[in-house]
Amino acid sequence: MLKLYYSPGACAMASHIALEEAGTDYELQKIDLRQGEQRTPEYLAINPAGVTPALATEQGVITQNVAILTYVAQTHPQAGLAPTEAYAFARMQAFNAWLASSLHPAIGKVLFSRPPLEGAVRAEALEQAFAKYDLAEQHLLVGPWALGEDHSVTDGYLMVFTRWARQADLLDKARFPRLNAHLDRVQSRPAVQRALAAEGLSAI
Amino acid sequence: MLKLYYSPGACAMASHIALEEAGTDYELQKIDLRQGEQRTPEYLAINPAGVTPALATEQGVITQNVAILTYVAQTHPQAGLAPTEAYAFARMQAFNAWLASSLHPAIGKVLFSRPPLEGAVRAEALEQAFAKYDLAEQHLLVGPWALGEDHSVTDGYLMVFTRWARQADLLDKARFPRLNAHLDRVQSRPAVQRALAAEGLSAI
Ligand SMILES: N[C@@H](CCC(=O)N[C@@H](CS)C(=O)NCC(=O)O)C(=O)O
Ligand SMILES: N[C@@H](CCC(=O)N[C@@H](CS)C(=O)NCC(=O)O)C(=O)O
Repeated sequence: MLKLYYSPGACAMASHIALEEAGTDYELQKIDLRQGEQRTPEYLAINPAGVTPALATEQGVITQNVAILTYVAQTHPQAGLAPTEAYAFARMQAFNAWLASSLHPAIGKVLFSRPPLEGAVRAEALEQAFAKYDLAEQHLLVGPWALGEDHSVTDGYLMVFTRWARQADLLDKARFPRLNAHLDRVQSRPAVQRALAAEGLSAI
Repeated sequence: MLKLYYSPGACAMASHIALEEAGTDYELQKIDLRQGEQRTPEYLAINPAGVTPALATEQGVITQNVAILTYVAQTHPQAGLAPTEAYAFARMQAFNAWLASSLHPAIGKVLFSRPPLEGAVRAEALEQAFAKYDLAEQHLLVGPWALGEDHSVTDGYLMVFTRWARQADLLDKARFPRLNAHLDRVQSRPAVQRALAAEGLSAI
C-alpha cells in the first residue's frame, strides 16, 4: 500500500490531497518537523534530503510534490486529476514547478526563517513573496480552477501556499480576490476537508 | 516551429540541450539577462515571470525547465529522453524538481546575488549549496547517467549546475568525484557540444 510521510500543515498537504482526491488506499506517517523527525536516521534512509513529503510505493520511494502529484494522477487515471495531452500536461507541470521553485521558497522564507526575519530584511522578503502572489493572481491562476475549467492536482498544491498566507494574514482580499476565491473553492471540496481533518486541521 | 527563449550559460541550457538531443527543428531567441531583456514588455508578454527559459509552441508558451524537459521528451518519443513507466517517470520528475527547487536556488544565491554576498553570509550560503551537491554526489546521481543506465533530460539539467560550480572553482574533484565524472560525460555528448556552441560556449 502507498504510504505518505507528511508533516501537518506543511507542503506535503498537496500530495495528501491528491491521494484523497484519487480515492486510493494509503497510509499516513507523521514526521514532526518541530521535533526534527525529518533528520532521524530512519527518515533519512527514506528521504536523504530530510524533508517531507515522501511517498513509499511498492517500487520505491518518490520525493518532491511535483513528482508525487503526477505519479498519483497517472496511476489513478479514472480520477481525472491531471491532463494527459502533452501541452496541457506541460502547462500543469509549469504551474507545479513554479510553486515548488518560486512561490514556496518565497513565502517559506517569510514564515519559517529561523531566527525569524526582522525589519528591512523581512520587508524585502515579504515584498518578493507578494510579487509571486501577484503573478499567480494576475497571470497563472486561470480560474475557476488553477488550470481552468478542470480541477487538477495543481489546485491542492496552490492551496497550501494561499492557506499559509491567509493564516498569516497576508492574503489580502482586495489585492488577491481571485486567490482568495480559489482557496475557498478548494477548501470546500470533500477530499480536501478529509485531508485537513486527518492532519488535525480544518478549513480557514 | 518551436522557439526557445534562452540566456547563454543560464539554466535554460537544460531545455536547449533537450531540444538538441531530440533532434528537432527549433529556433533560438536570446534574452540578455545582464541587459535586463527578461523585463521588457515584449518578453513579459511571453513569460510574465520574467525569467528564461520559455518555449513557444504552436499551442502556446511553456515555462519552467521541469515542464519543458518532459514536454520535449513526450513529443519526441523516438529520442528516448525520458522513461514513460509511471514510477520511473516519477523518479525523473523528483530529480528534476529537486534541481529546480533545491540545487538551483542554493547555488544561484552563491553565484548571482546582487550585491554579491560577502563574509559570513557568503560562507553560510556556500555551506548550504555544498550540502546540496553532497546529496547529489552521495544519493541522487545513480550513474553513469543521472537516473542510471539510460541517459535522459535530467543529465543536461544537472550538468548546468555542476558546470556553474566547476566554472566558479567549487566542484572539488576529491569531494565530488562522481559529479565531476558525470559533467565530463555529459559535455562529451555531441548534442551538448552543439548546444554549448550555439550559446557561444564550450566544454570546460
Ligand atoms: N520542493 C520540495 C520541498 C519539500 C520541503 O521543503 N518540505 C518542507 C515542509 S513544507 C520540509 O520538510 N522542511 C523540513 C526541513 O527543511 O527541515 C517538495 O515539493 O517536496
Ligand atoms: N525554475 C525556473 C527558474 C528560471 C530562472 O530563474 N531563470 C534565471 C536564469 S538561470 C533567470 O531568467 N533569471 C533572470 C532574473 O531573475 O531576472 C526554471 O527552471 O525554468
